[in-house]
Amino acid sequence: MRRRPAAGDDSLDPADWEALKRVFHDAVEQAVDHLRDIREAPVWRPTPDAVKARLEAPLPRAPEALEALLARFAEDMLPYGTGNLHPRFFGWVHGSGNPAGALGEMLAGLMNCNLGGRDHVAVYVERQILRWCKEIFGFPAGASGLLTSGTSMGTVIALAVARTARGEIDVRRRGLAAAPRPMLGYASSEAHGAVAKAFELLGFGREALRQVPVDADFRLSLPLLAEMVAADRARGCLPAVVVASAGTVNTGAIDDLAPLAAFCRAEGLWLHVDAAFGGLAALTPDFAAPLAAIAEAHSVAFDFHKWLHVPYDAGCVLVKDEAAHRATFASRPDYLAPAERGLAGGEPWFCEYGPELSRGFRALKVWFTIKAHGIDRLAEAIARNCRQARLLGRAVESHADLELLAPVGLNIVCFRFVAPGLGEAELARLNRAIVAELQMRGIAAPSTTRIRGRTAIRVALTNHRTTTEDLAILVSAVRRLGPELLAAEAAPAAALLPLATGR
Amino acid sequence: MRRRPAAGDDSLDPADWEALKRVFHDAVEQAVDHLRDIREAPVWRPTPDAVKARLEAPLPRAPEALEALLARFAEDMLPYGTGNLHPRFFGWVHGSGNPAGALGEMLAGLMNCNLGGRDHVAVYVERQILRWCKEIFGFPAGASGLLTSGTSMGTVIALAVARTARGEIDVRRRGLAAAPRPMLGYASSEAHGAVAKAFELLGFGREALRQVPVDADFRLSLPLLAEMVAADRARGCLPAVVVASAGTVNTGAIDDLAPLAAFCRAEGLWLHVDAAFGGLAALTPDFAAPLAAIAEAHSVAFDFHKWLHVPYDAGCVLVKDEAAHRATFASRPDYLAPAERGLAGGEPWFCEYGPELSRGFRALKVWFTIKAHGIDRLAEAIARNCRQARLLGRAVESHADLELLAPVGLNIVCFRFVAPGLGEAELARLNRAIVAELQMRGIAAPSTTRIRGRTAIRVALTNHRTTTEDLAILVSAVRRLGPELLAAEAAPAAALLPLATGR
Repeated sequence: MRRRPAAGDDSLDPADWEALKRVFHDAVEQAVDHLRDIREAPVWRPTPDAVKARLEAPLPRAPEALEALLARFAEDMLPYGTGNLHPRFFGWVHGSGNPAGALGEMLAGLMNCNLGGRDHVAVYVERQILRWCKEIFGFPAGASGLLTSGTSMGTVIALAVARTARGEIDVRRRGLAAAPRPMLGYASSEAHGAVAKAFELLGFGREALRQVPVDADFRLSLPLLAEMVAADRARGCLPAVVVASAGTVNTGAIDDLAPLAAFCRAEGLWLHVDAAFGGLAALTPDFAAPLAAIAEAHSVAFDFHKWLHVPYDAGCVLVKDEAAHRATFASRPDYLAPAERGLAGGEPWFCEYGPELSRGFRALKVWFTIKAHGIDRLAEAIARNCRQARLLGRAVESHADLELLAPVGLNIVCFRFVAPGLGEAELARLNRAIVAELQMRGIAAPSTTRIRGRTAIRVALTNHRTTTEDLAILVSAVRRLGPELLAAEAAPAAALLPLATGR
Repeated sequence: MRRRPAAGDDSLDPADWEALKRVFHDAVEQAVDHLRDIREAPVWRPTPDAVKARLEAPLPRAPEALEALLARFAEDMLPYGTGNLHPRFFGWVHGSGNPAGALGEMLAGLMNCNLGGRDHVAVYVERQILRWCKEIFGFPAGASGLLTSGTSMGTVIALAVARTARGEIDVRRRGLAAAPRPMLGYASSEAHGAVAKAFELLGFGREALRQVPVDADFRLSLPLLAEMVAADRARGCLPAVVVASAGTVNTGAIDDLAPLAAFCRAEGLWLHVDAAFGGLAALTPDFAAPLAAIAEAHSVAFDFHKWLHVPYDAGCVLVKDEAAHRATFASRPDYLAPAERGLAGGEPWFCEYGPELSRGFRALKVWFTIKAHGIDRLAEAIARNCRQARLLGRAVESHADLELLAPVGLNIVCFRFVAPGLGEAELARLNRAIVAELQMRGIAAPSTTRIRGRTAIRVALTNHRTTTEDLAILVSAVRRLGPELLAAEAAPAAALLPLATGR
């Protein structure tokens, strides 16, 4: 069917399209089999030195056959991923991916759309995803939004809009140095590091984000916030924005959103909700109520790649004040002038709502994920993780050699192995070693954190493949490794060697 | 092989893995056939209203079969993309994609790695890509870098580092308002809008970016820059950063980089090069020399998704001063504490070099693209586009009814259709109408811009599928449409109707 290109022209397309398809088909077989059999594999294994060495080769000048590259991928890369496909990956808050989303990613790669703007179908798909998100969080139809690489960028965008909406000057034109008084933000001491990073990036400076202490359940203390805001006003500053956490990273705590929203309304403060992973628990019966007040916020940012299991990366920001959102980012030089008809139509363009002009078709993998599973089934996977967290919490409490370090509010369980006679420093070292061994031996992959000064084994359940059996394997492995590592420490140094270099 | 999950557990994985593979295989057949036959399709067609209506359905609660979703995709989406797969897409500066890159995107989707950090193979792949980029631009091995969504984010990151390196206070902690005097940046009046947007986002404000006039070839005027810097110093400001363009968006002009670099060295200014698309022409014999001085810059940002045809989105930023780069973004709270062994190893983490904590495996599609074609073949596709631009420029000059509006420096041709007796406003309207008609009829997709007040048909050749025949089709269509549209305007208003609503 393809017309012969003129002499001297030679595209990057293959000479043999059927051969190309065969490589794709082989790749599908290999990568889907890997996923199917993931339960039998170690949760993580270190990348071999030989693979690292091959990945130090210089810039290749000559082409290589796609078949050979696929073989290289299958041998060198596929087995050595982050581990988050595995049912016993509990580290940080990683989503587990899903094949329907990966299908969307493949099709997006072949379609190669640019969603900075213009009039083409991909734009309508992203708009549909945004409407669905407004539906989930009770945002009005007129709210604006954007798919982002994740909540970190969503937070930058939302706080940039807050700067526009609450600033006393035209910050975009004149810069922060021209402001008559400093703008301040507030978030709890348990807020995610991305909030402080956004304050830094936007030029406010980290010190302009005031840390509000938390209550016994690790939730932002509203009385203390009120005190701080009043004191800052009294000393001539401009309290401008509160960032609430809907699921803190350490313990899954959900700030008390409704009273916070009322306070922000009364004080004229912009309320942004960091709903990175926890926000989507609003889809479950148990957490619909505490998360309902997200609807009262000015903006919310969250991730699809965590608890909706869309392949990395995919997040979203929603902003109620569309005009402020657009006023923060819109800018259409001559070469991007809109047109009434044709490809340059499609107003408004997404590049008017964020810093990026070129944007991939991230919306397609979200569309495939939500359509293929339906939101009810995705919500049930979230609810199941919350039930599993409570189950694991109870299991921890039932063993004298395990100690629960924070209440299990959502899907995160922080605990540690304890043994008589060990001080805090020794317990910290031991529990870090337990986590490293769990990972090195490929048994499970929790992460660590510190809770009120104590080092915790942190199990974040954002994994649709995890079963109750997986939790039992984790608990028994921790209880076996604790004494084993203590015994190894007590033994002569040489005995430690195979453990310390256990790759 | 897969162990039966415990009762009550139910992952998002398919019950029938072979059925899942069949959908992937069908998707490969459809999307690859679409690509193979793209030359026979219109370059662009408007998204039908029925499709738009279907994309307004509310949040789906129930699952849908993947087969049905693929059919929906094939019917509603695949034919209505951005158009940039087509050999006669010349709009803006869009890459054309390539199947090897799409294969990488599929595998990344199935592997679902998170490249924020940690110790897994994807991190080593991204590091390899960064080393290759340093090789291309003559950056030292110790330079740092990051894959980004594109040059817009790369520019934000680079200018944030410049703020750290050239600032007189700890901006990250204290904010821009605490600076003793305003920091200023300089870029030519032809610089991309992303530079001003970065200044806005970072809190400098747009006015802190001073517009330097250009010479007859649309290149930043160094004498005028020197005057402005001296005057700004004299009035107590802090000149801090110069952004040079390696390929302006309007005309493809390349700023005179070597003298600029010398000036910046002498003046203690940070030199950032916006090499979004043009920088990679350094790989071709004709442009290696004018682009060699990118090696003397402090930072450079560019896109893989433009002239290397990696599927959207994929860009990169390189920074020579790794310490300043890391000092701008590094921040490791308790829950991200590094470990010597296991998954939490792998120092340094990529999240220490940019605002994002979760990051997809963008590096894999870049790896597949560069390995499959080899950099020499990719460079030849770039060189071919430059030859085609010169050819098109000469064709325009050979016709009395066409007028070249800017010198053809790189790969961009700005011209217009002219007819006796038409004023500037009429010519502008006519040429905009010609471009809209070219798009609406699916013949070709150039864009428009304004060059020194004149509306131009802008042909950006970053398309590996374009042949000389495609250029001939474009030229003859423009020369046919000009008189046709003029005649239609002269005819009774009713005759215009089918044209104006030409969908």
